Amino acid sequence: MRISELFTKTRKEAPADEVSKNAQLLIRAGFIHKEMAGVYTFLPLGLRVLENICQVIREEMNSAGGQELKLTTLQDPEIWQKTDRWDDKKVDVWFKTKLKNGSELGLGPTHEEPLVRALKPFISSYKDLPFLAYQIQTKFRNETRAKSGVMRTREFLMKDLYSFAKSEKEHDEIYKKFIDIYNKVFKRLGIGDQTFLTFASGGMFSQFSHEFQTVCEAGEDTIYLDRKKGIAVNEEVNNDQVLADLGLKRENLEMVRAAEVGNIFTLKDKFSSPFGLTYVAENGENQNVLMGCYGIGPSRLVGVIAELLGDEKGLVWPANIAPALVYLARLGEEKQVVKSANELYEHLTELGVSVIYDDRDERAGAKFADADLMGIPFRVVVSQKTVDSGNFEIKSRTGKDSQLLSEKDLIKKLVA
Amino acid sequence: MRISELFTKTRKEAPADEVSKNAQLLIRAGFIHKEMAGVYTFLPLGLRVLENICQVIREEMNSAGGQELKLTTLQDPEIWQKTDRWDDKKVDVWFKTKLKNGSELGLGPTHEEPLVRALKPFISSYKDLPFLAYQIQTKFRNETRAKSGVMRTREFLMKDLYSFAKSEKEHDEIYKKFIDIYNKVFKRLGIGDQTFLTFASGGMFSQFSHEFQTVCEAGEDTIYLDRKKGIAVNEEVNNDQVLADLGLKRENLEMVRAAEVGNIFTLKDKFSSPFGLTYVAENGENQNVLMGCYGIGPSRLVGVIAELLGDEKGLVWPANIAPALVYLARLGEEKQVVKSANELYEHLTELGVSVIYDDRDERAGAKFADADLMGIPFRVVVSQKTVDSGNFEIKSRTGKDSQLLSEKDLIKKLVA
Repeated sequence: MRISELFTKTRKEAPADEVSKNAQLLIRAGFIHKEMAGVYTFLPLGLRVLENICQVIREEMNSAGGQELKLTTLQDPEIWQKTDRWDDKKVDVWFKTKLKNGSELGLGPTHEEPLVRALKPFISSYKDLPFLAYQIQTKFRNETRAKSGVMRTREFLMKDLYSFAKSEKEHDEIYKKFIDIYNKVFKRLGIGDQTFLTFASGGMFSQFSHEFQTVCEAGEDTIYLDRKKGIAVNEEVNNDQVLADLGLKRENLEMVRAAEVGNIFTLKDKFSSPFGLTYVAENGENQNVLMGCYGIGPSRLVGVIAELLGDEKGLVWPANIAPALVYLARLGEEKQVVKSANELYEHLTELGVSVIYDDRDERAGAKFADADLMGIPFRVVVSQKTVDSGNFEIKSRTGKDSQLLSEKDLIKKLVA
Repeated sequence: MRISELFTKTRKEAPADEVSKNAQLLIRAGFIHKEMAGVYTFLPLGLRVLENICQVIREEMNSAGGQELKLTTLQDPEIWQKTDRWDDKKVDVWFKTKLKNGSELGLGPTHEEPLVRALKPFISSYKDLPFLAYQIQTKFRNETRAKSGVMRTREFLMKDLYSFAKSEKEHDEIYKKFIDIYNKVFKRLGIGDQTFLTFASGGMFSQFSHEFQTVCEAGEDTIYLDRKKGIAVNEEVNNDQVLADLGLKRENLEMVRAAEVGNIFTLKDKFSSPFGLTYVAENGENQNVLMGCYGIGPSRLVGVIAELLGDEKGLVWPANIAPALVYLARLGEEKQVVKSANELYEHLTELGVSVIYDDRDERAGAKFADADLMGIPFRVVVSQKTVDSGNFEIKSRTGKDSQLLSEKDLIKKLVA
């Protein structure tokens, strides 16, 4: 994409009312627009990052055998009354609305109830189990205070996967597998080394649920982290009994701020029981289906990654989720320079390398500042100097020094 | 995907409360689930069709230079008051909701206002124009009666593209280009020969707007079609003056039912003027940006295509939007048959051919009925007979006869 054609622009200053680092950087770079508190539009470059994150998650869910579907935003009160989650006093984040005939509807803050009702007709025998269903869908939560930029919003994207199993043993196997899958997702998203499996309360259904917490100053949670072991406990289970159960020692725990980027829960029969979601077992008995729930927030991840990796110059994106791999800065309007830059742009594009081509008549400083602010992994410079040398200048976003490379070596570096 | 792993199932009968052909077939095939009147969940196979349709549209929008973004569902009243579209008496399809502090929000029934506000900071000079911005986003409309299955719903997917131009001439060029692009989209979706450019009222901003109407019994509109010329007029402009202007003769017009699958409008300065969306022209003057709006409903298209192409046996999908290209029916559980079918499944999958593999221990009739109901373009049979012959049996969904082909010829037929 040529910058001269991109309709967004960078800006020097963030709006005065944005206090979070992630929203400041994302707005300055032209990645998002704030509609109102806790509600953000994703502009083209921001949407690319969001879609790239979704794609990584989707690949991992599909390879685990997940089947994607898409539930609805509008919610039928009837199914939420079954589980006593319709009343605003029980679930305090509902947005409610009304049909013309006056009947109330809700906007889905989560989707267990509609999923169980929709899938019940398909489940009757042990032969139908186990399976995994997931969606990447917008959730609506009427938060009293929305803050932290895109990390906590009233309208956000969520990947929620649900497992349906025959037995606790089968459920436990799936659950354990997802701990590995989630670690892989966060590794692929470039935050693996700062994201830790965190033990949290399991509620009525199991001793623990698990959060994936990314150590990050802007996070809203406090966790107690054993860095050596690579696991943590959250505030609610930080007690002697739990530490003993997990083989953790208080003196090895570090209290750190963290942002929850994923969570997994054992739901047991919490939802299958009220909906009569049962199956006939091999022995002919009717049994409740056992469920698990596995969430990741892609739009929140945009914010967490911006917070964690961003520096004083701007955003920093890992190559696989960046809006483009290369920021091609053309310095100068001389015929040879324009020709060389155009050719490189076309060549890289043909090879499948995503390029933001800064073809504006602007000074080098402005171009470099934009490349850094947008967080593009590699900056390639084409100038009279590079034309004369027959090479191209390349610098990584986080590296200090640039390199002169022949086109062949440049391509080798950029094409994985 | 193996049918034994797919969590949805087909059913013989549609629910009694579904009267539309599209919803009946889509529910029977396990493609959608009805949450409530006018609100449908897309199950895995239905979601694939929907995503494939979106992909065709996205490719055409991108190749036209469209830049994708994603606006929000939650709407700030302030911007809709500017254009006098907040009041329920003015726009009667609003779903409204409330923040905890009592302030009202809306659910976007369309997105001109938020788009113009979001993009205003990026437009100041003639150099910033023209450009095209689009999104594929859920719209919410509080319809009094939702009927026609997924063709008219309260929550639906919409591709809305907006053009921003400097002059009427520039706008007209873009507008004309989009007539061609839309024709190409509908052609690629397999309904090109039944979809006609239809002249409609242009309101205050131009003589005409244009609809793309697909001739279809289940459609809600009546159009007057000159089949020879391939154009139509809708009810509102079906008068002598317009017919004369368009060179149409009343005696050549056929009155037909049709479903609107796309529309394009000239907006002129309807939205730019209230928001002060102006630019400085080359002559230094401040001028209003001129806008156009170009809509296509992907979820509605799922319904229209089901209505138009579906037959007494079930759905019929064009190859490029089908949930899979091949329905591989394995007949029999003999070792050689299983081996042959498994190998073909793996081979086709490796070659990038999407396959639904019916690996169930079921009789041939049930498998063929499901293949037809799901509308998969090609049915391939592996049986003791095919194993013995060294060939595979292939039949197209709409063809009468099957063919015996060697694996080489089969692959040649399936890999484009």
